[in-house]
Amino acid sequence: MPKAPASLAADMPQREWDRGRALLFALDAMGGDFAPKEPCRGAILACGEEPELSVALVGRRAEIEPYLEDAPSSVRSRISIVEASEVIGMGDNPGSSIRTKKDSSMRVIMEMVRAREAVGCISAGNTGAIVAGGVLVVGRIQGIDRPGLAVPIPALNRASLLLDVGATVRCKAINLYQFAHMGSIYMRSLSGVENPSVALLSNGLEEIKGDVVISEAREMLAGASLNFSGYVEGKDVPLGRTDVVVCDGFTGNALIKFGEGIGEIVKSVARTEIENHFLSKIGAALMMPALKKIWARFEHEQRGGSPLLGVDGIVVKAHGNSRDRAIAGALKVALGFAQLKGTELIKNSFETDF
Amino acid sequence: MPKAPASLAADMPQREWDRGRALLFALDAMGGDFAPKEPCRGAILACGEEPELSVALVGRRAEIEPYLEDAPSSVRSRISIVEASEVIGMGDNPGSSIRTKKDSSMRVIMEMVRAREAVGCISAGNTGAIVAGGVLVVGRIQGIDRPGLAVPIPALNRASLLLDVGATVRCKAINLYQFAHMGSIYMRSLSGVENPSVALLSNGLEEIKGDVVISEAREMLAGASLNFSGYVEGKDVPLGRTDVVVCDGFTGNALIKFGEGIGEIVKSVARTEIENHFLSKIGAALMMPALKKIWARFEHEQRGGSPLLGVDGIVVKAHGNSRDRAIAGALKVALGFAQLKGTELIKNSFETDF
Repeated sequence: MPKAPASLAADMPQREWDRGRALLFALDAMGGDFAPKEPCRGAILACGEEPELSVALVGRRAEIEPYLEDAPSSVRSRISIVEASEVIGMGDNPGSSIRTKKDSSMRVIMEMVRAREAVGCISAGNTGAIVAGGVLVVGRIQGIDRPGLAVPIPALNRASLLLDVGATVRCKAINLYQFAHMGSIYMRSLSGVENPSVALLSNGLEEIKGDVVISEAREMLAGASLNFSGYVEGKDVPLGRTDVVVCDGFTGNALIKFGEGIGEIVKSVARTEIENHFLSKIGAALMMPALKKIWARFEHEQRGGSPLLGVDGIVVKAHGNSRDRAIAGALKVALGFAQLKGTELIKNSFETDF
Repeated sequence: MPKAPASLAADMPQREWDRGRALLFALDAMGGDFAPKEPCRGAILACGEEPELSVALVGRRAEIEPYLEDAPSSVRSRISIVEASEVIGMGDNPGSSIRTKKDSSMRVIMEMVRAREAVGCISAGNTGAIVAGGVLVVGRIQGIDRPGLAVPIPALNRASLLLDVGATVRCKAINLYQFAHMGSIYMRSLSGVENPSVALLSNGLEEIKGDVVISEAREMLAGASLNFSGYVEGKDVPLGRTDVVVCDGFTGNALIKFGEGIGEIVKSVARTEIENHFLSKIGAALMMPALKKIWARFEHEQRGGSPLLGVDGIVVKAHGNSRDRAIAGALKVALGFAQLKGTELIKNSFETDF
């Protein structure tokens, strides 16, 4: 069973990027609905806010350069361009495109992580290709069967982590078991919670709920050195009953997209109702500061990216419709993960114990 | 392949309840978080609004009677009490309790449907026991492998139906296929949409998404006489991209409970934000009529119950925390389903074609 490593891997070998002031991350400039504009603006934004951050924009130089013209020189000096001529589209087959499009921006950012030329990589592109690239190019951590994509959920009174949200569509018990361990380590690094509570998503709280896979994972986790609290159900995810919730990628994907859809219709219904009532318009104007704070809690821009846990390097996925603020958020997630040596924590844990 | 029956089964044999003015439904008076009070009040409420409705409250007479004292006589005359001494609790094992607790209110309402003493039954009790009772006591429609619980979703600009939300935790392709047909028939009866669009929930819109079961169901449905529109993803459910969305019971259960949880935290965050700002308080007061309309769209009380499709009689599940309005809603769902002869439509379709 994995145990908590004694220290934050203080004895890590010093690498190229440790010697300079800034940590270099490879950003897929061609990935996402608003590429290359928003990735470029996001890099400028993040570098302006994080003096330790350095970004390599990977993609077609001629398309990237115009968006860097206005960058202040203190920021521009930490942004470089790495040429990559091909692009993996949203409709491309993930596995085959990452294999065949060797000069795609997505493949190149992964190669940079594998070669330790970059501390980590970030993309708002094709999720399947990010996962395939993580497994095929960056490579899995020894002992990890399948990786898991983790997203922070804006739960009541705490940050809560949900994984997997789409890397491993259907899971074996060992996958859920490993997600629980990786989620716990990531949450500990991220939020500072000493011993994060971890639960399995099921269709009810009682032990008889779930299916054979979930039930097997439950037994494995009951015997593990984790703060395991058994099953939670769907409503416990936003209510934040535990620090980490583990499920298969199909279910996690359905949940976060369902949440996005609810957000869209609440906004739309609210807009219609407010516009149809004169007093409501005045009321909405008075409430605007509070309304903005409420929305901010649920906007993915505020939460940044989703780390792909279980690969031997930092790979962070940003939402496909990311604007600059969301890209900057994903860069900060990657930076924070690097500063906390998250990959090493997971590696140490699994290499020691599996 | 099932085809649309030519008429609303106009040649159905006339039964006992067809001869009287009112249709009799058996209501589990002991089921749900607020039993027997709220089921009793719900029966009074619904009978007051629906002159065609008659309700048998099933449970412990001594506990039920006090709640009927204030009922107006025009309503009281359509409410009867059927004694049942036992109660199936939320923590009871569904299958074994429905088998062994032969005098439980849940078992008795199911027996009444099987014996055609009631047109249908409604319970806010243990969901697993409702499903087990539907299968073991009421019985499946010939040709139906597994039943599915369907819930109406308050989607944007239309009512949308999601099934299964917990009757069949993990599904074979044939289950998803049959849910699609039953959901289409139910939605046609419910909303009057001539040829409802039906989709399978997947983790993306592309054909390569999903797992082997979903992919097999997709191929079966592509060849069926349904208005099948392929895959939708989580966010399309609240956005109402199709009339019916089909998934396994585990996923559907996670989704609706996740939605409930989001509702709870949005309310809680909004309350805090509003109370912390003086102007927001005035704004909220001015917006109250609009806010109430917004919440009403998302409250399950307004949507009533979930029919268990695929059993040979009307079985409707109400939410466990149902108050009188929600119970009345579930009774109305059952009444509407009976008036439209929904069970017969499904039977005709499957007996003819499978």
